[in-house]
Amino acid sequence: TKRYSITILPGDGIGPETISVAKDVLKLIGSLEGIEFGFQEMPMGGSALDLTGVPLPDETLSAAKQSDAVLLGAIGGYKWDNNPKHLKPETGLLQLREGLKVFANLRPATVLPQLVDSSTLKKEVAEGVDLMVVRELTGGIYFGKPRGIGTNENGEEIGFNTEVYASYEIDRIARVGFETARKRNKKLCSVDKANVLEASMFWRNRVTSIASEYPDVELSHMYVDNAAMQLVRNPKQFDTILTNNIFGDILSDEASMITGSIGMLPSASLGALGPGLFEPIHGSAPDIAGQDKANPLATILSVAMLLKYGLGEENAARRIENAVLDTLDKGFRTGDIYSAGNKLVGCKEMGEEVLKSV
Amino acid sequence: TKRYSITILPGDGIGPETISVAKDVLKLIGSLEGIEFGFQEMPMGGSALDLTGVPLPDETLSAAKQSDAVLLGAIGGYKWDNNPKHLKPETGLLQLREGLKVFANLRPATVLPQLVDSSTLKKEVAEGVDLMVVRELTGGIYFGKPRGIGTNENGEEIGFNTEVYASYEIDRIARVGFETARKRNKKLCSVDKANVLEASMFWRNRVTSIASEYPDVELSHMYVDNAAMQLVRNPKQFDTILTNNIFGDILSDEASMITGSIGMLPSASLGALGPGLFEPIHGSAPDIAGQDKANPLATILSVAMLLKYGLGEENAARRIENAVLDTLDKGFRTGDIYSAGNKLVGCKEMGEEVLKSV
Ligand SMILES: CC(C)[C@H](C(=O)O)[C@@H](O)C(=O)O
Ligand SMILES: CC(C)[C@H](C(=O)O)[C@@H](O)C(=O)O
Repeated sequence: TKRYSITILPGDGIGPETISVAKDVLKLIGSLEGIEFGFQEMPMGGSALDLTGVPLPDETLSAAKQSDAVLLGAIGGYKWDNNPKHLKPETGLLQLREGLKVFANLRPATVLPQLVDSSTLKKEVAEGVDLMVVRELTGGIYFGKPRGIGTNENGEEIGFNTEVYASYEIDRIARVGFETARKRNKKLCSVDKANVLEASMFWRNRVTSIASEYPDVELSHMYVDNAAMQLVRNPKQFDTILTNNIFGDILSDEASMITGSIGMLPSASLGALGPGLFEPIHGSAPDIAGQDKANPLATILSVAMLLKYGLGEENAARRIENAVLDTLDKGFRTGDIYSAGNKLVGCKEMGEEVLKSV
Repeated sequence: TKRYSITILPGDGIGPETISVAKDVLKLIGSLEGIEFGFQEMPMGGSALDLTGVPLPDETLSAAKQSDAVLLGAIGGYKWDNNPKHLKPETGLLQLREGLKVFANLRPATVLPQLVDSSTLKKEVAEGVDLMVVRELTGGIYFGKPRGIGTNENGEEIGFNTEVYASYEIDRIARVGFETARKRNKKLCSVDKANVLEASMFWRNRVTSIASEYPDVELSHMYVDNAAMQLVRNPKQFDTILTNNIFGDILSDEASMITGSIGMLPSASLGALGPGLFEPIHGSAPDIAGQDKANPLATILSVAMLLKYGLGEENAARRIENAVLDTLDKGFRTGDIYSAGNKLVGCKEMGEEVLKSV
């Protein structure tokens, strides 16, 4: 039997609830596919702050590094919102991404036929949307230096950050973008602000030069303001979107809301070597935490991405995806995706239904 | 009689067409309201490049500075897209904003009852949307230094920009935000990325401290990724949005597309002293230029903003706004906002109908 070690970071808010369900799905799929999973649960985010004083304890990072894949629930909550930067749950997440060197963040935004009514977009605009945002995750303005709050030469107080990309950072994420598009509909749209920013002009030049390695993929470029519009106007025009860290943060959230069901959307963060990081794109939803109301499907689908992108277990991944679709076909819905005529269930029951359908 | 001098910058693409119509509206309103307008047309953008070799000739900037208000059509086109940065039409626009010191960009996004079907959002989500984005326009990553394409200490090629805000820049745009909200529904939402960026933490601190001058305005804060989602989920929750240059670029375009009729949306860019700059938010639409297909209403409504915010002529402004609404009520539509049952007209005819309704 194959064996994999999985680091599990339940995190905060609804994280532990959705993780518990997703772990059961992973166990079942393992027993059915002859794969053995070893699990190690570690603290991270606000709960790690409360327990250890830091949002990403060294033990958590080193356990994660030594495992085959990392599954994260969600982090953050009102309680820690006013903490200084180095004591914010979010800082722990950035340290984890940096520590695991997961520079490529894949965020699918798909409108499932069963859930097309959840979108605030008109049915004819929303139906059939199936795009993937490939976001650079360990560079750009998130990590660039110099950064801080200080004083300028006129003695005025200033806040500043640096948007910076080196050629190797752009080249490697561009290749992930092209590879991803190649496995999809072979259309890659690189999003930047090259009419204003030098960092974007450089980005565009590098992406264009990498394109010669992928003659079968059609490359286009779009300004970020236009991309934010086009996602609302006609999201179906997009197949794969390639962009930097901050634009990817904004556009992937916009794209996910266009599907109307962000409780359904997983993500994968991958590096060149070492384990990937898999997490739902939704937050920790502190307002419904502990009430068995959370939608576990995004975390379950993150398990599918973990199997596919993290471990290369495509069969097992597909079984989970199909089980989720079957469960939706049977009419089970958590509150966030509920519509009349369906069966309202909680987090646990949704998990049990998925288990039945695997 | 009152006299005002107006610098007119027709620019590129559909700019000259919509400007010609808007100028007629301004002339008529002047004669009805006893205001005399002196017009000076100057080259700017791609047409200035072709004529003079630079996107913003010195003569254009100094004429603009000496006038009471500046009306701009649109700039840019395929022809100049691959020009080096200093020879791009967009660079001329940035130089104009900087030269006029118009740090406050007001971008309304309103869904008119007559046009609610133009939105790709469901009717119940789109109807009643009426928000204003107050975008900082002469600072941040658009203008921050250092910037460029160079080499880092490891000898790798890099592209870089600096996001930087000084306290006085934040304070003055925050005051515009609060003043704007005060005249509307007294809700100001400041958008930043303070969970990651120091420039945003500083922004949030300054905005919060300015809030004490406006106890009647309710201030909230939102992360930019969440704002991009909330604009799709429930745009009606917003009254006035305050944000920096780059986030404002993205969010105001997203908000405008949510209305479904970006051919309708004007903008005002204001400084502390000196003339304001007024322009439609749409681009130069080179694909339909010269075909009498453009929607002139955004430029006409920019004239209304010019009268209201630039010259303090609120009556004249209201007359234009009402004329536009009347024209829509009568069923006149350009192609971009056309729906069955209405009368399809070109740019000129739409202008004539507005003149009749003034
Ligand atoms: C929590 C925050 C630091 C994070 C980010 O900005 O990357 C989140 O918004 C995300 O997109 O995963
Ligand atoms: C043309 C471009 C430089 C400009 C900007 O980014 O500010 C435009 O997108 C706008 O929003 O007015």
